[in-house]
Amino acid sequence: MAERLNGHTLLVSLIATPIRHSLSPTMWNEAFAKKGMDYAYLAFEVGNEQLEDAVKGIRALDIQGSNVSMPNKQKIIPLLDELSPAAEMAGAVNTVVNQKGHLVGHVTDGTGCMRALREEGVEIKDRIVTLTGAGGAGTAIAIQAALDGAKEIRIFNIDDEHYETARENVRKINEKTNTLASVTPLTDQAAFKQSLAESSVYIDATSVGMKPLQDESLINDSDLIRPDLVIFDVVYSPAETKLLRFAREHGAKQAYNGLGMMLYQGAEAFRLITGEDMPIAHVKQALGLN
Amino acid sequence: MAERLNGHTLLVSLIATPIRHSLSPTMWNEAFAKKGMDYAYLAFEVGNEQLEDAVKGIRALDIQGSNVSMPNKQKIIPLLDELSPAAEMAGAVNTVVNQKGHLVGHVTDGTGCMRALREEGVEIKDRIVTLTGAGGAGTAIAIQAALDGAKEIRIFNIDDEHYETARENVRKINEKTNTLASVTPLTDQAAFKQSLAESSVYIDATSVGMKPLQDESLINDSDLIRPDLVIFDVVYSPAETKLLRFAREHGAKQAYNGLGMMLYQGAEAFRLITGEDMPIAHVKQALGLN
Repeated sequence: MAERLNGHTLLVSLIATPIRHSLSPTMWNEAFAKKGMDYAYLAFEVGNEQLEDAVKGIRALDIQGSNVSMPNKQKIIPLLDELSPAAEMAGAVNTVVNQKGHLVGHVTDGTGCMRALREEGVEIKDRIVTLTGAGGAGTAIAIQAALDGAKEIRIFNIDDEHYETARENVRKINEKTNTLASVTPLTDQAAFKQSLAESSVYIDATSVGMKPLQDESLINDSDLIRPDLVIFDVVYSPAETKLLRFAREHGAKQAYNGLGMMLYQGAEAFRLITGEDMPIAHVKQALGLN
Repeated sequence: MAERLNGHTLLVSLIATPIRHSLSPTMWNEAFAKKGMDYAYLAFEVGNEQLEDAVKGIRALDIQGSNVSMPNKQKIIPLLDELSPAAEMAGAVNTVVNQKGHLVGHVTDGTGCMRALREEGVEIKDRIVTLTGAGGAGTAIAIQAALDGAKEIRIFNIDDEHYETARENVRKINEKTNTLASVTPLTDQAAFKQSLAESSVYIDATSVGMKPLQDESLINDSDLIRPDLVIFDVVYSPAETKLLRFAREHGAKQAYNGLGMMLYQGAEAFRLITGEDMPIAHVKQALGLN
């Protein structure tokens, strides 16, 4: 097969560090090749120190758009020209669209999670959601669930650096949307149990279940699992976290890992930057996920 | 075939405008694919206005190196950290090597021309060379021929904006090398004929012979053609310029177009940036040049 890159090929970048092991380049390039699109997607090791010049480079080289990951998701905001409502509320950007030098920041982690749920028949609208975690993923999910019309979002978080973020997210959601949001220390297990009992969906947006916390779960009481409680873990490696295994063993009918979220946040970024739909089935096959 | 681009793939760029129709991306990417090298080569439309930020981007994104073409070959010099001796003398750069943020400028047009001649058995050392043209290609060729030990370089140029460049090149060559250089107006046809009669090699580094000058040649007198005069035209599209056709029709045994120079300037840049040899035969085949 002849090489598909030529003089017309346009670049989409991913700026983060460490980043070499990301699946995103494979995902995007397989999609470009499948659809015969004249684009390439490449990862660049960029930290906060190089960020300003990297953004200058995006404009000067007319890089069509960029994904942004840690540690740049917040720091890139003052370097952009415009933010989507969700990015504005979340205070984080994972996708930049370059409109002829005018850079617009979006966050697609939340829409990725919502679409992953929707593909499983789960609509968040008018539902009560219990959410653990208030880092980047937790924030994006809380904001998007509110923008998508969740009835209530009850955030539980340990007393770490993200607790203040959670408070801020709650304040914004209550001020700007019709969703009722609250945050409670995760140490208040009685409140956590009560919340789960009243929720349709539980989303774990912490890194519990992923190395080095692969042997931990925030739910260890089988009374909390119900067949009609949708359980969503943002972790996708391992594919089955301790939470998911425990939930399935105790009767959960709908327990999902973060793979769909990862795919759909990419698909949404793909659509924003190129205007095209990502061929999801092909991408899953190319990643060996079928 | 699975897509070869992944999270480890490193970028080499080409910054120039207009540039989308360049053959270089195909050349480099075919070479990378053939050798299984984790690199991609992409063209970016960059003019003088974007150049400074583009170079900041090269550093910030750790782009491994870049080719540089018009209109940036001179303007990029103050933005670099170091120049090769040939780039310094030519006052032009077509290749930048990024050594961990330390940018070194090279010019490989001249070495490309010398290697193309060498591959045909023509050594420039101790030879008298007649050269028309003193633009970017002519300058690089004059400088490299001097660095490679030509006995004399006799430049002929029309009275255009490059005549002063030619004078400057002559001054530098006479000052810094053992080669004797001179420049004469091309209108002095007697001197031109005399020079050709005493030369082993004639190089036409003007754009005469290429559209819109495809019906012109700087040599129209068959007395100037000898079987032992090597004729080299930097133009490669059309493959046979009026000069080459005329020379062959009148007994020239060695008349070459600029294709080899184009390939070998790329091969030299490839070696400087990646440390690897470009697989020339494969690249020629991929470009449909065999």
